[in-house]
Amino acid sequence: MDIHTKHTQVRPAHIDRARMLISCPDAPGIVATVSKFLFDHGANIIQSDQYSMNPDGGMFFMRVEFDLPQLSSRLPKLESDFGSIAEQFQMEWYISDVSRRKKLAIFVSKEDHCLVELLWQWQAGDLDAEIGLVVSNHPDMKDYVESFGIPYHHIPVTPDTKKEAEERQLEVIGEDIDVIILARYMQIISPTFIEHYRNRIINIHHSFLPAFVGGKPYAQAYGRGVKLIGATAHYVTEELDGGPIIEQDVERVSHRDDVPELKRIGRTIERVVLARAVKWHVEDRILVHENKTVVFN
Amino acid sequence: MDIHTKHTQVRPAHIDRARMLISCPDAPGIVATVSKFLFDHGANIIQSDQYSMNPDGGMFFMRVEFDLPQLSSRLPKLESDFGSIAEQFQMEWYISDVSRRKKLAIFVSKEDHCLVELLWQWQAGDLDAEIGLVVSNHPDMKDYVESFGIPYHHIPVTPDTKKEAEERQLEVIGEDIDVIILARYMQIISPTFIEHYRNRIINIHHSFLPAFVGGKPYAQAYGRGVKLIGATAHYVTEELDGGPIIEQDVERVSHRDDVPELKRIGRTIERVVLARAVKWHVEDRILVHENKTVVFN
Amino acid sequence: MDIHTKHTQVRPAHIDRARMLISCPDAPGIVATVSKFLFDHGANIIQSDQYSMNPDGGMFFMRVEFDLPQLSSRLPKLESDFGSIAEQFQMEWYISDVSRRKKLAIFVSKEDHCLVELLWQWQAGDLDAEIGLVVSNHPDMKDYVESFGIPYHHIPVTPDTKKEAEERQLEVIGEDIDVIILARYMQIISPTFIEHYRNRIINIHHSFLPAFVGGKPYAQAYGRGVKLIGATAHYVTEELDGGPIIEQDVERVSHRDDVPELKRIGRTIERVVLARAVKWHVEDRILVHENKTVVFN
Amino acid sequence: MDIHTKHTQVRPAHIDRARMLISCPDAPGIVATVSKFLFDHGANIIQSDQYSMNPDGGMFFMRVEFDLPQLSSRLPKLESDFGSIAEQFQMEWYISDVSRRKKLAIFVSKEDHCLVELLWQWQAGDLDAEIGLVVSNHPDMKDYVESFGIPYHHIPVTPDTKKEAEERQLEVIGEDIDVIILARYMQIISPTFIEHYRNRIINIHHSFLPAFVGGKPYAQAYGRGVKLIGATAHYVTEELDGGPIIEQDVERVSHRDDVPELKRIGRTIERVVLARAVKWHVEDRILVHENKTVVFN
Repeated sequence: MDIHTKHTQVRPAHIDRARMLISCPDAPGIVATVSKFLFDHGANIIQSDQYSMNPDGGMFFMRVEFDLPQLSSRLPKLESDFGSIAEQFQMEWYISDVSRRKKLAIFVSKEDHCLVELLWQWQAGDLDAEIGLVVSNHPDMKDYVESFGIPYHHIPVTPDTKKEAEERQLEVIGEDIDVIILARYMQIISPTFIEHYRNRIINIHHSFLPAFVGGKPYAQAYGRGVKLIGATAHYVTEELDGGPIIEQDVERVSHRDDVPELKRIGRTIERVVLARAVKWHVEDRILVHENKTVVFN
Repeated sequence: MDIHTKHTQVRPAHIDRARMLISCPDAPGIVATVSKFLFDHGANIIQSDQYSMNPDGGMFFMRVEFDLPQLSSRLPKLESDFGSIAEQFQMEWYISDVSRRKKLAIFVSKEDHCLVELLWQWQAGDLDAEIGLVVSNHPDMKDYVESFGIPYHHIPVTPDTKKEAEERQLEVIGEDIDVIILARYMQIISPTFIEHYRNRIINIHHSFLPAFVGGKPYAQAYGRGVKLIGATAHYVTEELDGGPIIEQDVERVSHRDDVPELKRIGRTIERVVLARAVKWHVEDRILVHENKTVVFN
Repeated sequence: MDIHTKHTQVRPAHIDRARMLISCPDAPGIVATVSKFLFDHGANIIQSDQYSMNPDGGMFFMRVEFDLPQLSSRLPKLESDFGSIAEQFQMEWYISDVSRRKKLAIFVSKEDHCLVELLWQWQAGDLDAEIGLVVSNHPDMKDYVESFGIPYHHIPVTPDTKKEAEERQLEVIGEDIDVIILARYMQIISPTFIEHYRNRIINIHHSFLPAFVGGKPYAQAYGRGVKLIGATAHYVTEELDGGPIIEQDVERVSHRDDVPELKRIGRTIERVVLARAVKWHVEDRILVHENKTVVFN
Repeated sequence: MDIHTKHTQVRPAHIDRARMLISCPDAPGIVATVSKFLFDHGANIIQSDQYSMNPDGGMFFMRVEFDLPQLSSRLPKLESDFGSIAEQFQMEWYISDVSRRKKLAIFVSKEDHCLVELLWQWQAGDLDAEIGLVVSNHPDMKDYVESFGIPYHHIPVTPDTKKEAEERQLEVIGEDIDVIILARYMQIISPTFIEHYRNRIINIHHSFLPAFVGGKPYAQAYGRGVKLIGATAHYVTEELDGGPIIEQDVERVSHRDDVPELKRIGRTIERVVLARAVKWHVEDRILVHENKTVVFN
């Protein structure tokens, strides 16, 4: 028996369920039009969230979860019929079939805590996604990852081979990966790569109040006697650690916590915060506008 | 100059804004019907929240915040037009004019921390409501409350005069109070009184994990060495402290906290939790179904 | 390479380090006497915590962490020399050699989240202890546990075989286990067994504010619309779930969380809370007095 | 009756109680020497906390709370006797008579939430200190502060009169103020002034993860979609907002919170965090070393 594979089938509740995500300039009648459209097509709305940044000319965001019998065969027509509404309101939109679980690629370097948490949540059935592969610039986690039945690609990266390494990464990722998780992957991603996966690369990093400029942030935090340390999960943009924030959390520390203990606590927060961000992404709960997320959770 | 009265006027943003609250059995087409109705009447939806307990025959809850020019003159017709939709879906519903701030009556006994917090948030403009009066079975807070320009009614309660006291309370409350806040009011409210203000009486009490049966819960909590103490705000029902929960929170304690310190911490949580519950109530964010709240916040 | 075994050696910092734990009636001069004793024996105090429940006749608790060169060879004499001080102040006390890591037995039934968290923290080097064995009344986790190189004892329990099962458990545990962790072990432990491991059996269970009497607490919590769910780790006593509390925590939930989601969140809190309690136990941070813990953390 | 003055007397428990605070290079025998000294002088230790940054040549910090009959008459001799011990271990130290409550000066500009919280906690008996005076560069809060029987000094500050204003401030503060609280006081304090009250000026400011450089941090935080906003209380040093951190906390926010709502939440955290920092200062729980605090709480 493979000890790591349970809970990997589609849950029955998810058959014939879809999620529709919409961003557009706010205007009268959007909710009415969308909900009438779904009703006329025989869909039953399970949950619906809207948010208007500013009803007077701001952006409007909507997430609708609905059930539609024979979804998979009827989805193409539903999408094609929705085209004229989308055009009318200048919508960016997509519909996601819940029974088709999202596929992750996880990138990792040497620190394994975020990877292990994701594998563990996945194995426990708490992460409703597939893990397509793990990519690392180090060989260390190969045996562990493969024991879950997941392919592991060791692609070393040096300043000289960075470009080739990224090409190789894109190659092994292939075409059917929905989202890339940087689970403490310590290499900078190139703008070309980011462009390929716009708003589909999630990174995690430690965060402090205040922020500390320069190296060794944990040592600086210790020297300043911070009382909280935190972590931030965000989408990767060309600005380093400057992309739209998905989730943040903190934990309380005290003067008794030395630098290694601060790092240990930091790891715990990182794994929790990253796992939440991934969960919300695969459940289509996140919309991005400019440099900001709207998270319907 | 009266030192306590600022921020009491209606904020401009609230003119012509309304909130519609709906509970009904789930059925296809509710969102489409309601949003089309509002659109056809010229209303612009600012925010809309829905929740379905179970799409297969469960209850459906909806809160819509919308702007409608000339709201106050058009509201009667809007309500009357909505009647047939409400009937079709067996809705319980109401529309609330945001520019008409809700009116509170605050009941208090000797402990003043919850009352003081509400007065302070109100004075700071953070509680968008009017405080119509304060009722107490003790005279202690009279001068303090009146210094805010708020009427204070001292109505003593004894086992023998309980019935007369409640009649007197209902009399001073009059007809235009929307919600009654039991801000550490230590008398039991009669079923008759509760019936008058069904789901419109908010109480606050301390909470522990585990709960402690019998008297002196703080002493019991100390004896068991609890690590968290909490507070619960809920609507009052005939079952003592058993009504629908609106909000809860906890704070961390340790063995160093003796019983008086536990009580001090308890007071801090109580004032925060009660203030949140009151805020959500006056913003029409709470729907009650059976013994449970749906809070759209 | 065994993928699961790293960080299992003693950290250098722990050589020659010890912890002294003391409980006694408060009296003048305890701190002075103990610290002078340690100083006279060449020990250097690294950290010292005291707590007096009530200086006027209450109990006094002390934890001292100290370094002493050649600790292991000098510990017997240190302990024997301390005897007369201990007698003078009616102390309960012990000294623990930090380089000798505590040995755990983990009991588990079918739910594996707490076991997996402990194994993972242990493997990551965050749990400074040895895991001697896992005992279960089910065979399910055998392969998984053994993949860590840890013995797994499947000992079925039925109402008829309960006594024999416990005897068998005591047998496989042997003499050198320091603490037993009930990581969602769903059998009641007999008073005889508890007596063997007084204040050395740690249990975890869910907690609610308020508590719910009767079966299906998550369903009851859902029906009441609780806004927080929690977990409590405690030492096991003869009173079911009534022993001294070690740690508690909660997480926020909302009306959107159905019963399975509440259970999922509950599992996350349980694993965090149990792991903290175990960490504090193996670091000798907990003193028990009557039905209460003093936790020096 | 003055509505604002209750709980201002010394609590009986505090008579004959003192606190001793010590910082010095770590060395063997400190705890033994100090506790023996106190024992020999008839003092009974109520609570004692120590912390060693690094037993191998780091700093050592100690806080001892003790009872000594006839404290006030015996304190001078106790202090003078302690001199030789202090010299031997190169200690910085002081003993504080708990019955002599610390005296605060509160500085405020236009935003009143932190001032109001301090006044309210003081009035409720939760802040064990005296408020000697309030100083402001604006007249707005005069009536309110004076209604508590507290002197209010309106000292305008302009770029041209800054020096004279600070001289005037020092004059009205006089000689017996223990600590200055900058409760949203929006003027920069000069190095001369800071030197007068080294580690005795507490400031509060908002904090974000990540920090935002430049103006309008709340607008920037909104634009980035932060999920937490926080506040930091710290001692004032010559480096703007760069002094030793006393306390920090955060609150969760979402995309639904616009800039005014973020500011409202920020105010709530600021008042809680500042009040905790002030409480710990007046209870002699804070030791400062280099740019860091040790908080024994």
